[in-house]
Amino acid sequence: MFVDRLTESIKKCGNPSVAGLDPKLGYIPSGIKEKAFREYGTGFAGAAEAILEFNKRLIDALCDVVPAVKPQLAYYEMYGAEGIRAFAETCRYARARGMIVIADGKRNDIGSTAQAYSAAYLGKTDIEGTVFSAFDTDALTVNPYLGIDGVKPFIDECAASGRGIFVLVKTSNRSSGQIQDLVTQDGRHVYEKVAELVDEWSDAAVGRSGYSSIGAVVGATYPEQARVLRKIMKKSYFLVPGYGAQGGTAQDAACAFNDDGLGAIVNASRSIMCAWQSEAWSGKYGEGGFDQAARDEAIRMREDLRQALEARK
Amino acid sequence: MFVDRLTESIKKCGNPSVAGLDPKLGYIPSGIKEKAFREYGTGFAGAAEAILEFNKRLIDALCDVVPAVKPQLAYYEMYGAEGIRAFAETCRYARARGMIVIADGKRNDIGSTAQAYSAAYLGKTDIEGTVFSAFDTDALTVNPYLGIDGVKPFIDECAASGRGIFVLVKTSNRSSGQIQDLVTQDGRHVYEKVAELVDEWSDAAVGRSGYSSIGAVVGATYPEQARVLRKIMKKSYFLVPGYGAQGGTAQDAACAFNDDGLGAIVNASRSIMCAWQSEAWSGKYGEGGFDQAARDEAIRMREDLRQALEARK
Repeated sequence: MFVDRLTESIKKCGNPSVAGLDPKLGYIPSGIKEKAFREYGTGFAGAAEAILEFNKRLIDALCDVVPAVKPQLAYYEMYGAEGIRAFAETCRYARARGMIVIADGKRNDIGSTAQAYSAAYLGKTDIEGTVFSAFDTDALTVNPYLGIDGVKPFIDECAASGRGIFVLVKTSNRSSGQIQDLVTQDGRHVYEKVAELVDEWSDAAVGRSGYSSIGAVVGATYPEQARVLRKIMKKSYFLVPGYGAQGGTAQDAACAFNDDGLGAIVNASRSIMCAWQSEAWSGKYGEGGFDQAARDEAIRMREDLRQALEARK
Repeated sequence: MFVDRLTESIKKCGNPSVAGLDPKLGYIPSGIKEKAFREYGTGFAGAAEAILEFNKRLIDALCDVVPAVKPQLAYYEMYGAEGIRAFAETCRYARARGMIVIADGKRNDIGSTAQAYSAAYLGKTDIEGTVFSAFDTDALTVNPYLGIDGVKPFIDECAASGRGIFVLVKTSNRSSGQIQDLVTQDGRHVYEKVAELVDEWSDAAVGRSGYSSIGAVVGATYPEQARVLRKIMKKSYFLVPGYGAQGGTAQDAACAFNDDGLGAIVNASRSIMCAWQSEAWSGKYGEGGFDQAARDEAIRMREDLRQALEARK
C-alpha cells in the first residue's frame, strides 16, 4: 500500500519532505550541460541527457535523507519524447535508490481517458496480452474538476496495485482562490466541498497506518485553510507545495500535519535543486558540488520542519 | 491567429467538427498491428508504430472533410516515450495535411510550470539560445482549477504566437456536476463563474472574425447549460465533446453555436475511429477500409450537424 510505504520512508529518514525535480536548464551546472551537448548535440537529446544526469546526481545525494522525489511532468514534456524518456529513467533511477516517486502531472479527464492516464502512471499497459509499465511511478497528482468519474479509475488502481494519488484541493499559487475559494450556498468554500469528496474517496485505500493512499494537495501558502482541511480529510496525506521559494514557512507547512506528526509531506523544488546557486550554499560549494549543496539544504529543511513540528506540540 | 484559421477551415470543409484521435489498440485493424509488431516488436515501439500508421490513414481520409483533429494525450502517454513520439509525429502529419491540431491534455499548474506546458504545446523550447518545437500543436485544452495565474502563460502564448486554448468549463461526463454545478452564494453555478473568467480572459486574443482564441470546453451532454454559457462567453469558440458514443445528439450540440452558425466545434472520437467496427459501416467496408468508413461517418456527422443547425434557424 502506497501510504504505508510513504509513512515508513518518512520515519526512516526522519523527514516528511519531498524534493521536486523540475529541472530547468538554468538550474543545471554548465559542466553537466556541456558534456551532454557535446555527446548528444544541442537539442532535445542533449537537454534530456543533461537533465537525467543532473537528476541522478541529486537522487544519489538525497536518497538517504529525503524519502521521495516529485518530478514535474511539464519540465520533461517541453523536450518532447526525449524529455519523456528522461522522465521515465529518472523515475526508475529514484525507485532503484529506494525513493518514492510522485509524478506531478495534475492529470484529469473523463472516465475512459482517466483510465489511460492511470495505466500510464500507476498501472500497466496491455499490448496483445503482455503488460508493460510506461512510467511505473508510486503516485500521481490529479485534478478533481471533472468529479468522481474522472478520479475513480485512479482510485481503483490505487486500491488494486498499491499506488497513490494526491487530489488538488487548495493549491499554493496566488490565484488559487478564484475558483477554489468560491463560497457555495451552504457557506462552505469549493475547496471544502472538494475536501469532503476526497475524504469520501479516501475510504477506498486505507493502509495499516490508518492513512489512505488517496491524498490531497494543500499549499503551504494557505495555513488557515490547511487547518480547516486537516479536520475534513483526517485520513489523507497532504502533499504540501509552496514551501521556500513560493513563500511558505515551516510554521505554515506544519498546519498540514496531524497531531501524530504525520499526514503530510512538504515539497521543495527550487530551494533544493538550486541550492548551489544560492547565497547560503554557493560559498561552500562550487558548481561541481551542486549535489552536496542540495543535500545540505535538504537537511536544513528537515531541521526547519522538525523544529516547527516540535514547537506545535 | 488560431481562431481565424479555425473559422476558415470550418467554412472550407462546411463542417464544424473535429475528429478525436484516441487510438486504443482495440480500434486498430489487425493488419496494421501485425505489420507494426512484426517490424518493431510487440511492445511500446510496435504499439506506437501501429497507432501512428492508423492515425496517418485516418488523417489522409479525413483531411478534406474535417477541419481538425484532437489527439488525446493519455492514449499516447500510456506507451511511454515511444507513444509521445507517435503523438508528435501524428501532430506533424496532420498539420502537413492542412488540419488544425488540438492537443487534448487538460494541462494545469502554477504559473512557472504552466509556462513550461505552454512552451511544450503552443510555444518554443529554448536550448542554449536556439529554439525548438516539442509538439507544435495549434491549441491545447486547459483545466482552470488553479485560476488565472495557471492559465495566463497559455493566454500570453496564444496572443504572441497565434495559438489557442480551450478552457474546461462544463465537461461532458456524468459526474461533471459534482464540482462544476456547485451553486455559489450569488445563485450562480461554479461553471458560470468559470465562464465569466473565460469571457474576461478571452479579450486577450480576439481575431478578425470577432471570435477569441481563448475558447471553452462545453459538453454536448448538457444542452441547457450550453445555452446559458453561450450567452456568457459570446466571443469564445466552444469545443464540444460528448456527441455520439457519449450520448449527445446534433440537436444538443447545436445549443453550443451562436446564431451566425459559428462559435463551436463538435468532437467525435470513437464513432469516427471505430466506424469500421460499427453496424452502420462494417457491412460496406472490411477492416481494410477502416479509413473510408471513418470518412463516411464524418460526412454523416457533418450532415447531422448541418440539419440540426438549419432546424434551429
